[in-house]
Amino acid sequence: MAIQIDPWSDSIPQDYAKLMEDFGIKSFEKIAEKTPDPSHLMRRKIIFGHRDFERILKAIKKENDYVVMTGLMPSGRMHLGHKLVVDELIWYQDHDAKIYLCVADLESHITREISLQEAREAAINEYLTNFQALGLNLEECNLYFQSQSDVVQKLAHTLGNKVNFSELKAIYGFGGDSNVSHIFYPMIDVADILHPQLEEFEGPTPSIVPVGIDQDPHLRLARDVARRSENDYGFILPSSTYHRLMPGLTGGKMSSSKPKSAIFLTDSIEEVEKKVADAITGGGHTVEEQKKEGGSPDECIIYSLYVYHLMPDDEELLELRKACESGKLICGDCKKKAIKFLNKFLKNHKKNRKSVKKKIGKIIEDHS
Amino acid sequence: MAIQIDPWSDSIPQDYAKLMEDFGIKSFEKIAEKTPDPSHLMRRKIIFGHRDFERILKAIKKENDYVVMTGLMPSGRMHLGHKLVVDELIWYQDHDAKIYLCVADLESHITREISLQEAREAAINEYLTNFQALGLNLEECNLYFQSQSDVVQKLAHTLGNKVNFSELKAIYGFGGDSNVSHIFYPMIDVADILHPQLEEFEGPTPSIVPVGIDQDPHLRLARDVARRSENDYGFILPSSTYHRLMPGLTGGKMSSSKPKSAIFLTDSIEEVEKKVADAITGGGHTVEEQKKEGGSPDECIIYSLYVYHLMPDDEELLELRKACESGKLICGDCKKKAIKFLNKFLKNHKKNRKSVKKKIGKIIEDHS
Repeated sequence: MAIQIDPWSDSIPQDYAKLMEDFGIKSFEKIAEKTPDPSHLMRRKIIFGHRDFERILKAIKKENDYVVMTGLMPSGRMHLGHKLVVDELIWYQDHDAKIYLCVADLESHITREISLQEAREAAINEYLTNFQALGLNLEECNLYFQSQSDVVQKLAHTLGNKVNFSELKAIYGFGGDSNVSHIFYPMIDVADILHPQLEEFEGPTPSIVPVGIDQDPHLRLARDVARRSENDYGFILPSSTYHRLMPGLTGGKMSSSKPKSAIFLTDSIEEVEKKVADAITGGGHTVEEQKKEGGSPDECIIYSLYVYHLMPDDEELLELRKACESGKLICGDCKKKAIKFLNKFLKNHKKNRKSVKKKIGKIIEDHS
Repeated sequence: MAIQIDPWSDSIPQDYAKLMEDFGIKSFEKIAEKTPDPSHLMRRKIIFGHRDFERILKAIKKENDYVVMTGLMPSGRMHLGHKLVVDELIWYQDHDAKIYLCVADLESHITREISLQEAREAAINEYLTNFQALGLNLEECNLYFQSQSDVVQKLAHTLGNKVNFSELKAIYGFGGDSNVSHIFYPMIDVADILHPQLEEFEGPTPSIVPVGIDQDPHLRLARDVARRSENDYGFILPSSTYHRLMPGLTGGKMSSSKPKSAIFLTDSIEEVEKKVADAITGGGHTVEEQKKEGGSPDECIIYSLYVYHLMPDDEELLELRKACESGKLICGDCKKKAIKFLNKFLKNHKKNRKSVKKKIGKIIEDHS
């Protein structure tokens, strides 16, 4: 049986290669080399797979229009795992993309039973404030709330006419006890992905959806539906890239429902120190053993913090890696270093949040 | 097995008594007697069943607020069968109801594959123009298009969290090949019915949905969902009345998909003459036989035209009935009389449509 990827579970898929083979996702490695000014996420194979990225690369190189579509589901606090997509968006914004940013308040409401009002507040005070503070220019994005977009709702109903229950059952494992809002929800997600290509927006245009691998079911469905609706809308199949899921400090996926697994963007210095101290590493059982045998960075969550977020410079990272593997750098010191980096980042982020907070209300208003 | 009522099929349920027993619908006969100034539809048992009409009667008698909720599905041309609901609405408007009128453009779109734009045009030029021309004061109604109501969409998603696929399968017979928009649609209908009771509208208020018996599945679902959401919203269970389905001239239900079965509100004199001439009657095989044995008005579609629409005066109707049963009035003459009545009505309606057409645009605009 194929490995099932469920965007709504907390489990981390172990075998990326198998997933890629099963679902026809291509390796990103070679195309990263052809990409001008690739981000650290591209260079380090954190973005490891894609579908039709060639089309986007061509648009970037020829300076043609293209769209980046992404969503944020307001639920709980934002952590470093969520930051990956923001880093990707900033890269695309630097490369002249038109960014469509969907606040998936209906998804929070339907899959997490969060009221639409709470979802709205979380989106504004937590997510959008962080996005802007991290460096994304929201004023340049096409930002909307799912529950308020007539266009998306209508498109979902239209496209849903072409998708039957058996198909959704096969993709998402729905059954008789699945609630009907959840059953319909994937169509809203598909409409989010495809609506920038409607004539009233950009018309048929290359578009890309940068996602975690857990979101691939929505992408496959969106591409299937785009194919079926080609005669009606002339949709160009949406491209996608897949990034690894940020590992949690305690193993598994970094998740806001397990606070010890995550570094939140609004964590205090004390919280960070405690969490990093408790984090799983790739070190030996004793300091002596580690000095002799060296550490295993690829099994180390602290190392992944450097790779994903803290050390964008490749040479600096390589040095750290060598120091670990040779036994020169032991876990205690490495954790102290990580805490220093993290605290610098979080302190700076706090300052940025403060200055963003003043204008975020106006940004939302301008988009309504 | 219980008789299944399917709002989306063209078949006419034969056994109303059985339906009432199976689904707990009460007879309207006794409560009609307690109703002040009952309409001809009430007096003649065309409205034959109800749920909780007592609550509405009380509101009418005490001059308390109450809501009438109804929808129109823009699909094809409007015929005498559609006129029943309009007559009911006019009665309620005369009895101080707050009328919520939903243009079910999503229903046309999803169940009939009519584009939302076509549905909008049909709603305005055909349905709403006719409603106003028949005497309903749309300016006093709370009129909205389903596809444009954020509130209804949001409520549908919220309430859909409490309804699972198995339930909808049992009510509507959905299966693996049902399309997902159709599967979700009943939740929109439920949200239409319940949304007038949201705090931002009337708050919890007695409400009534006058429908054809084929719409009962939506009502049962709406009442079930209202019960489950009582703690969240305090909904008062919506009341309902059930009217018989207007018989078609050629047998079965009057349906716009079978033009010969229906008198359309915009039919020409020639069309009406032809259709009435071809209609099924309760007459004998020969004029001689009929003069001797008399006719059977209860098997006669022409008689039902008088009962449902053409002869609101009960004494006049009784005289006609007696003349038929005694053999004094034969079918040919009775049809001529019906044609005369119909043409008078349609000519008058045409004139009214003309004068309404000028202001219908503004009425729609005022409601947007």
